[in-house]
Amino acid sequence: MPLVRISFREGKSAQYRRAVADEVHGALVEVASVPELDRFQVLTEHAPADMIYDATYLGVKRSDDIVMIQITLNQRAQHVKVAIYKAIAARLAKNPGMRPEDVLISLVPVAPEDWSFGDGKAQYVKAET
Amino acid sequence: MPLVRISFREGKSAQYRRAVADEVHGALVEVASVPELDRFQVLTEHAPADMIYDATYLGVKRSDDIVMIQITLNQRAQHVKVAIYKAIAARLAKNPGMRPEDVLISLVPVAPEDWSFGDGKAQYVKAET
Amino acid sequence: MPLVRISFREGKSAQYRRAVADEVHGALVEVASVPELDRFQVLTEHAPADMIYDATYLGVKRSDDIVMIQITLNQRAQHVKVAIYKAIAARLAKNPGMRPEDVLISLVPVAPEDWSFGDGKAQYVKAET
Repeated sequence: MPLVRISFREGKSAQYRRAVADEVHGALVEVASVPELDRFQVLTEHAPADMIYDATYLGVKRSDDIVMIQITLNQRAQHVKVAIYKAIAARLAKNPGMRPEDVLISLVPVAPEDWSFGDGKAQYVKAET
Repeated sequence: MPLVRISFREGKSAQYRRAVADEVHGALVEVASVPELDRFQVLTEHAPADMIYDATYLGVKRSDDIVMIQITLNQRAQHVKVAIYKAIAARLAKNPGMRPEDVLISLVPVAPEDWSFGDGKAQYVKAET
Repeated sequence: MPLVRISFREGKSAQYRRAVADEVHGALVEVASVPELDRFQVLTEHAPADMIYDATYLGVKRSDDIVMIQITLNQRAQHVKVAIYKAIAARLAKNPGMRPEDVLISLVPVAPEDWSFGDGKAQYVKAET
C-alpha cells in the first residue's frame, strides 16, 4: 500500500539506491504494520541543479547526500509516524551508511479506499452486500 | 483537475504510453465526472532497478509490465473510486492490451480549492463577494 | 516543509528552471508563512509526449511552456491558497517571464506530523512529556 518515491542526487550506485529502498521498506514493515510483500517504490535520480535543498533548516546540517523520501500510505497515528521517521533514519545509518541529517521524509496520508492493487479492484474495500 | 502521474518500466513505446494515458483519462471522464478537457498528465520511465514492485501481494500476479498510476483529484465517493479502478483496468486491457494484474492505482484526494489552472486563479473557488 | 515538484517540458535552461524554483519558493515565503530556509524542491524535465496538457480547459490558453507545480505542504486556509496561486503566477511573469496561463498548480495538504526534516525526528511534533 505505501507508494514510495525516493529522490536521489545523481551519482549513487544502483546498489546504494537499492539499499535505501530496502531499508525504507524494512522500516515500514517493522514499525508501521506494512505487510512484507506490500512494496511499491519508484526511485529517481536528479542533477544537482534539479534537487534543491536548504542545508541548515531547523538546525539540521544536510549534505549533497540528501535523499527525499515521499510515502503515500494509509493514515497512521502520530506515534507511528514518529516511529517511522526514527526507524528509517536508524536503518539508513547502518545500510548504506547515510548521515541521519540527510534523510528527509514526507508522508501523504490517504484512505484504504484510495488503492487498487491490480485487477481493477479496491482490495482494501469490503464488499458491499 | 486530476494531475495524473504514470510510471512505466522503460522499454514501452511512445505509442504504448500514450494509449495508457488516453485510457486512464477516458476512464476518469466516463465514471468520475471529469470534464473531457480537464487533462494533465506526466509520464515517466524507469530502469528496472528503479521501479520496485512485489509480484504477488494480495494474490495479484504482477509482471514487469506493471504501471503505477497516481492520481491527485478532488475527493470522490467510495463507489466512484471503485468504478475508477474497474474502468481503468478494463480500458487498459483493450488498449494497449495490458494485463489487469499490472495496473496499480493510487488516489490522492484533495479539495477544489487546491487547484489553480492558470492565470494565478483558484478556478474552483467561488468568488467571495 | 513544502516539498515542491516542478515539471517542465524539456528544453528550458538550467537558469530558467532555477528562476521558476526561486520564485515559487519566494511566493510561499511571501504569502504562506513558509520560512525562508524551508526549501525542498525537485525539478524534472519531460519529453513533449510525456507531459500531456489540455490547451484550453476552463478557457485558459496554455502553451508548450506549461509548468506543472505540485506542492505538498501543511494545510492552509482557503484565502492563503488563493494568495499562493496569485503570487506564484505574478512572480513567474516577471522572472523568468512566463505567461500566467502556463502556470498550473496542485496543492497536496498534509499535517505537521507528516514531516521529518532529518535526524529521524518529527520536528513539527511537540515532545510528549
